[in-house]
Amino acid sequence: MSGLFISLEGGEGVGKSTQTARLAAALQARGLHVAVTREPGGSEGAEAIRGLLMQGEVTRWSPHAEALLFAAARADHVEKRIRPALEAGQWVLCDRYLDSTRAYQGGQGIDDAAILALHAFGSKGLLPDRTLLLTLPQGAGEERALVRDRGVADRFGARGPEFHAEVTAAFERIADAEAGRVRRVDATGTPEAVTARLMDALADLLP
Amino acid sequence: MSGLFISLEGGEGVGKSTQTARLAAALQARGLHVAVTREPGGSEGAEAIRGLLMQGEVTRWSPHAEALLFAAARADHVEKRIRPALEAGQWVLCDRYLDSTRAYQGGQGIDDAAILALHAFGSKGLLPDRTLLLTLPQGAGEERALVRDRGVADRFGARGPEFHAEVTAAFERIADAEAGRVRRVDATGTPEAVTARLMDALADLLP
Ligand SMILES: Nc1ncnc2c1ncn2[C@@H]1O[C@H](COP(=O)(O)OP(=O)(O)OP(=O)(O)O)[C@@H](O)[C@H]1O
Ligand SMILES: Nc1ncnc2c1ncn2[C@@H]1O[C@H](COP(=O)(O)OP(=O)(O)OP(=O)(O)O)[C@@H](O)[C@H]1O
Ligand SMILES: [Mg+2]
Ligand SMILES: [Mg+2]
Repeated sequence: MSGLFISLEGGEGVGKSTQTARLAAALQARGLHVAVTREPGGSEGAEAIRGLLMQGEVTRWSPHAEALLFAAARADHVEKRIRPALEAGQWVLCDRYLDSTRAYQGGQGIDDAAILALHAFGSKGLLPDRTLLLTLPQGAGEERALVRDRGVADRFGARGPEFHAEVTAAFERIADAEAGRVRRVDATGTPEAVTARLMDALADLLP
Repeated sequence: MSGLFISLEGGEGVGKSTQTARLAAALQARGLHVAVTREPGGSEGAEAIRGLLMQGEVTRWSPHAEALLFAAARADHVEKRIRPALEAGQWVLCDRYLDSTRAYQGGQGIDDAAILALHAFGSKGLLPDRTLLLTLPQGAGEERALVRDRGVADRFGARGPEFHAEVTAAFERIADAEAGRVRRVDATGTPEAVTARLMDALADLLP
C-alpha cells in the first residue's frame, strides 16, 4: 500500500513546524506510519543545498539561481526521501514544499509556469495528495517568528512587510486555483485548536 | 566596446586548463584585456555549488539534480562574472561551459533540449562567441589526467572508459550541429603547438 503525501504551507511563523510535529503525533496515535520532513532540505544533498540558500546576504542569489537551487534540492529530497517513504506505505508530512517556492520565488518575478517546469524536470512533478495552508492575519506570523528568533532573521525572514504580503497573496492564488489539493486552515488560537482543525482538513483521507 | 566570450571544451585531461592560461597570455600579449574563469564555479556562489558537485560519491546526485545544480551555478557565474566582464570590454576565457553540461549530463540520459531550456531560464541562453573543442585520441586525455592527479579522481574522473567515450561523442555531435560557434582543435603535441592552433582558430575574431 502506498502512503499519502501531505505538505504544510504558509508564510513566515504561521506555525508550520509546530504543527508538522503535532500532526505527526496525532496521525501516529491513529496507528499510521508517519515520516516527517522539511524543505529546503530533508535529505543529505538537499540539506547541503539548504545551507547555501539560507545563509548570506539577501542578494546572494538572483531569483533565477535561487529557483534552480530549490528545484535541485527538491529533486534530491523527492528521490532519496519522499518517494521511498511513500512506497514503504508511510504518510509523509512535509514542512514547506513546492508551493513555498511558487510563493517566494514567484514574488520575485519568476513565472509560475517556469517554476512548475523546473519541478516537472527535477521531480517528475510530484504533488502532495493534500496541502494544508495555514493562515493568520497579515503580520501575525512574522511577529511569532520574531519572538522565536529574538530578532535574528535568515535570508527570507530578513525581507520587509511588502514582501511577506506578496507571499501571502501568492499562497492565496494557489489555494484558489488548486482547491482540490489545497485546504486553508485557520492558524489562530492554541496549538491544540490548530491541530484539531488540521485533522478535520484530513478527515476524508483518514482510514 | 563589448568583449568576446570564448569557451574551451573537451573531455578529461585534454589540456583545457593548461591552454586557458596559455591562451590568456597570448591574447594579453596582443594588448587585449582578458578575464580567465572556469566552470563549475567562477563566482563566489558558483564555487560553493562546485563544492557540492565535485565531492562525494559518484551517485551522490541524480542526473536531474546535477543538471539543476550546474544550471544554478552557471546562472550565478554568468550574472556575477561573465556578463560584467564582457560589458567592461574584456575577453572572457572560460575553462568548460554549457557544452560540458550537455556532454556529461546528456551522457546520463538528460535530454539536450531540457539542458538548453534550463540554460535559457537561468542564464538567458548566453552562448560563447566561439567554443574551442580540444580533441585527443580516445583515452589519451584520461591518461594525462591520471598522471596529473596521481590516481586520485573526482566524481567525474572516477567514471569508466565507456562514460568518457560517450562524453567525447556528445562533444562531437555538438561540434557537428553548431559548426558556426564550435571549432575543433587538435590537442596533441607540445603545449606551444596547441596554443598556436588555438590562436589560428580565433584568427578571424582578433583585432
Ligand atoms: N498556535 C500558536 N499560538 C501561539 N504561538 C505559536 C502557535 N504555534 C506556533 N507558535 C509559535 O510561533 C513561532 C513560529 O512557529 P513555527 O516555528 O512553528 O512557525 P513556522 O511556520 O514553521 O515558521 P517559519 O516560516 O519561520 O519556519 C514559534 O515560536 C512557535 O512556538
Ligand atoms: N600538450 C600537452 N602535452 C602533454 N601534457 C600536457 C599537455 N597539455 C597539458 N598536459 C598535461 O596534461 C594534464 C592535463 O592537462 P589539464 O589539466 O590542462 O587538462 P584539463 O582538460 O583541464 O583536464 P580536466 O578535464 O581534468 O580539467 C596536466 O598534467 C597537464 O600538465
Ligand atoms: Mg518552520
Ligand atoms: Mg581542467
